[in-house]
Amino acid sequence: MINKLINDIKAKNAPIVVGLDPMLKYVPSFIQEEKFKEFGANAKGASEAVLEYNKGIVDAVYDLVPAVKPQIAMYEQFGPEGVIAFKKTVDYCKEKGLTVIGDIKRGDIGSTSEAYAVGHLSSVEIGGEFHEGFNEDFATVNPYLGYDGIKPFMDVCRKEKKGIFVLVKTSNPSSGEFQDRLIDGKPLYELVAEKVDEWGKDLMGDSYSYVGAVVGATYPEMGAALRKVMPKAYILVPGYGAQGGKGSDLKAFFNEDGLGAIVNSSRGIIAAYKQEKYSSFGERGYADAARQAVLDMKADLNGIFT
Amino acid sequence: MINKLINDIKAKNAPIVVGLDPMLKYVPSFIQEEKFKEFGANAKGASEAVLEYNKGIVDAVYDLVPAVKPQIAMYEQFGPEGVIAFKKTVDYCKEKGLTVIGDIKRGDIGSTSEAYAVGHLSSVEIGGEFHEGFNEDFATVNPYLGYDGIKPFMDVCRKEKKGIFVLVKTSNPSSGEFQDRLIDGKPLYELVAEKVDEWGKDLMGDSYSYVGAVVGATYPEMGAALRKVMPKAYILVPGYGAQGGKGSDLKAFFNEDGLGAIVNSSRGIIAAYKQEKYSSFGERGYADAARQAVLDMKADLNGIFT
Repeated sequence: MINKLINDIKAKNAPIVVGLDPMLKYVPSFIQEEKFKEFGANAKGASEAVLEYNKGIVDAVYDLVPAVKPQIAMYEQFGPEGVIAFKKTVDYCKEKGLTVIGDIKRGDIGSTSEAYAVGHLSSVEIGGEFHEGFNEDFATVNPYLGYDGIKPFMDVCRKEKKGIFVLVKTSNPSSGEFQDRLIDGKPLYELVAEKVDEWGKDLMGDSYSYVGAVVGATYPEMGAALRKVMPKAYILVPGYGAQGGKGSDLKAFFNEDGLGAIVNSSRGIIAAYKQEKYSSFGERGYADAARQAVLDMKADLNGIFT
Repeated sequence: MINKLINDIKAKNAPIVVGLDPMLKYVPSFIQEEKFKEFGANAKGASEAVLEYNKGIVDAVYDLVPAVKPQIAMYEQFGPEGVIAFKKTVDYCKEKGLTVIGDIKRGDIGSTSEAYAVGHLSSVEIGGEFHEGFNEDFATVNPYLGYDGIKPFMDVCRKEKKGIFVLVKTSNPSSGEFQDRLIDGKPLYELVAEKVDEWGKDLMGDSYSYVGAVVGATYPEMGAALRKVMPKAYILVPGYGAQGGKGSDLKAFFNEDGLGAIVNSSRGIIAAYKQEKYSSFGERGYADAARQAVLDMKADLNGIFT
């Protein structure tokens, strides 16, 4: 799956992942009204509205980008109905040929991490047959519990040729509270990165590992250092756009082959129509606005290498 | 909710939480067969079997214990159908008066943690009205992203009078890989514990804070140290029984008031009928076996204070 992702990044010339993180306030009112009328102004109606909104965006951008990253929290907020919409979103994106990175940030002790890994990246045995759960292509994983929380994901990735992105240095303001603390002179995030490199050596695709890392766009200097610590890890870079990261800050996240990083933008794309810059698209043009925002992001990122 | 939990621990004389972590292999074959016949040998059938199994256990133990802790990974492995069974399990346990600790180990950047907090502990606004998602009483939370991943949970807990347990020192063998590393001479888990204490001061119940901590039974010496670092935090102690922790190891997790810790046992209770000790109950007596295992655990823990 890392090979497919890299091939699609090259073919589309776009190291871009669209974050499908639908807050209900992003969903145009005409979609909300339609779905509330059909299903009620409740968890089911909200979840169907989110799904419809996602489909519009996916239809508008799937030829431009290699991947999407639905953030499961935004679906879990609606309870089980939201989780059903998450699964339908995953399926819809895969039908369109997109690589799906489940932003689930799971991590637990061994047998429990195994259940997460099976549910999100593989299939579970029921009565002698295998049934898929959510079936994303990649998942984000939290390292706080150490290797035996990561290994079950790696075992599943080996079997299914899928991948993970381990949280190394997150994009949020307080990420340094624990991640930046020095251990034997090195910040914790660097120790985690060293482990990502070590774990990943055992699980290589053609040129990059199945084990990637998350490093926030908001910390470009750390990105530069971490790029060298884990040269074979694909870096998933959140925090571009709305969180403050800019294209010119991102060169350090890439290797000299022009590969090695994929940059996420969520509300900067999916809620582009709410920005002044794209306001002429209007609410009903939300998907076209998202397409234009992807084109603009592509131009911004391509500027890195010229 | 921390006050209710403590009252119920006292009333039932049982600092015990039953972990509802149903692997399908624990579910007696007569339940699996019945539900597969009704719903098919698929995710729906498996999820219904798990729910039926849970109800049997809850019916057998709810008068003995104050709380249950469903581990959401075990439900997510079946995809959306499993998540529906998780929600039905939460609802069933609450109908029986039990405090429900959602073992979800979520943690993300601010706005995303807010969505998790709302979905699991509060309600989301849809079309001007509020709708609950999963509605647990407590949730477990991962601290790797720092304060702004925790604060949204704290805001929701203040509003709803609910609580969280922050992962401090987990019970698994490799928990030390990052958690034990020394920062300015102190292990990382101790820094996290200091923060739990600090955060919790702002969110006090009558005698303990809404902000608790997870410390594994498998590390009793660290439990003793951590008890002193965060005197007002209730400690959720996993790892008793099947993971190797024993009652006599656990005194250090409690304060001198006999309170301050609640000990989890999962498969030691829910799959007791598979142990030689309880094999006379047989598969059809799985719930009675669970009840006996709770009574034995209660006696073991009460031995701590005599």
